[in-house]
Amino acid sequence: MRVTWTPSRHPDDYPFVHRLRVRFAETDAMGVVHHAAYLPYLEEARVEYLRSLGHPYAELREEGIEFAVVEAAVSYLRPLSFDDEVDVHLVLAGATPATFQIGYLLTTGAEPRATAVTVHAALTRSGRPTRLPRWLTSLSPPPAAGHP
Amino acid sequence: MRVTWTPSRHPDDYPFVHRLRVRFAETDAMGVVHHAAYLPYLEEARVEYLRSLGHPYAELREEGIEFAVVEAAVSYLRPLSFDDEVDVHLVLAGATPATFQIGYLLTTGAEPRATAVTVHAALTRSGRPTRLPRWLTSLSPPPAAGHP
Amino acid sequence: MRVTWTPSRHPDDYPFVHRLRVRFAETDAMGVVHHAAYLPYLEEARVEYLRSLGHPYAELREEGIEFAVVEAAVSYLRPLSFDDEVDVHLVLAGATPATFQIGYLLTTGAEPRATAVTVHAALTRSGRPTRLPRWLTSLSPPPAAGHP
Amino acid sequence: MRVTWTPSRHPDDYPFVHRLRVRFAETDAMGVVHHAAYLPYLEEARVEYLRSLGHPYAELREEGIEFAVVEAAVSYLRPLSFDDEVDVHLVLAGATPATFQIGYLLTTGAEPRATAVTVHAALTRSGRPTRLPRWLTSLSPPPAAGHP
Repeated sequence: MRVTWTPSRHPDDYPFVHRLRVRFAETDAMGVVHHAAYLPYLEEARVEYLRSLGHPYAELREEGIEFAVVEAAVSYLRPLSFDDEVDVHLVLAGATPATFQIGYLLTTGAEPRATAVTVHAALTRSGRPTRLPRWLTSLSPPPAAGHP
Repeated sequence: MRVTWTPSRHPDDYPFVHRLRVRFAETDAMGVVHHAAYLPYLEEARVEYLRSLGHPYAELREEGIEFAVVEAAVSYLRPLSFDDEVDVHLVLAGATPATFQIGYLLTTGAEPRATAVTVHAALTRSGRPTRLPRWLTSLSPPPAAGHP
Repeated sequence: MRVTWTPSRHPDDYPFVHRLRVRFAETDAMGVVHHAAYLPYLEEARVEYLRSLGHPYAELREEGIEFAVVEAAVSYLRPLSFDDEVDVHLVLAGATPATFQIGYLLTTGAEPRATAVTVHAALTRSGRPTRLPRWLTSLSPPPAAGHP
Repeated sequence: MRVTWTPSRHPDDYPFVHRLRVRFAETDAMGVVHHAAYLPYLEEARVEYLRSLGHPYAELREEGIEFAVVEAAVSYLRPLSFDDEVDVHLVLAGATPATFQIGYLLTTGAEPRATAVTVHAALTRSGRPTRLPRWLTSLSPPPAAGHP
């Protein structure tokens, strides 16, 4: 696995936060949010983070760049329920010329609910690996510095 | 609405059947299958039906034809639960040069669980309407003859 | 089908509106939003509508009432794309003692993208039909008056 | 993270396999299967694995035991496409009295497409941790012996 970063459980360690609300469709017969539904939460937060940087993902795609997910890891701490307001805290946790990783902390109120890491590669529209955009690698701390 | 056909609750009225099993991910906090999860069931059955006709949907797409859903209506009779084996009965219920409709009956054992109708249009890869393939219109009963 | 109401394409005919944004996870290989993803959009708008009436759905569920979907019909007018901001316009379109129907218009900017109707029944926690809450039936126009 | 096992890319290292087919609804606008859709694939394979052991998950749930996902990690090697037939190879990769982990390899033909690990805890119906069933811990290799 290329995940090299361990997500913190402290919101202060994350420079960006996106709030969303749990849909009923995302719950399962255990009465809580299904574990697969967390990945679209991370994605939604990622998209808002890119927008906040002035690089909306829809524009990147029009320019011919896709950010494929090459790895995803989620640690489920306490279940989420229907109608919960969830804060997805996000940090760019390292980049190489070809991949970057993002760390996440999900909280409701002050309570940690889940942590996650996703690793992404830049692809051309035809699916070939390509270099990450300059603005992204320049933003990112070196991956080695990622970790306590 | 262009749906002109009322689905029967008798499996014998359907020439094709596809069996699938309910995933846990498809349930919701009511303990039953979420209503949105039925549409992928219909789609899965449609794909198997096209395969059974010798026209796999993946091949149609490679030839540049998409079947967009222009309408969908589902009537939920009795809830489905995790691990249920569901028979999706299917009938081509009418076609015009530009659209066709498909009727569905979902059963578990002999018990009706839902009925549905979807209406489809043929599109080119760039999203423009195009004529339905000949083999499809020739297969289909005229829409007027659909059902009392 | 019990749907007795035809949804208008004019936002002014809808007293409530909820805005959401298309997730990448909701798109499909045609490059647009998958038709099944519309149902959770309607549900999200319904939940916000109930909240705006002072009756959050999460509270109704705690009191032991579920609103099961007994019918859903969607008419797809023009596809939605990733990152679109979608306004889901909503109207309570009729109620009987046991069921109510809701009409929807989805727009981006001023452009209609889809219309829909869902029909709901009130259930107890154990899945038995029960009467709709008074506040709901008193709010609702009689179904016959729904719409031409 | 509690994942202690690294999944092999050799089908022979997995004693169980479940085949499924990619639904169109599971693809996204990149033209391939969305990364969140893999988790329900793993779950479907897990459910079939438990059935093959004579312990269908639906029965376990009726007896009051849930297997909550406490961690999930997926490594995406090569994208899956609509209509692909996917073999989900599965191995019980270790257990403690309270949790067990399962390793997965997804292949199409002989080609590896993804690997994954999920970690599970046994919960009572009210969500409290409970001991794993005896048949499960006795089946499982000790976690230390999992894999180099």
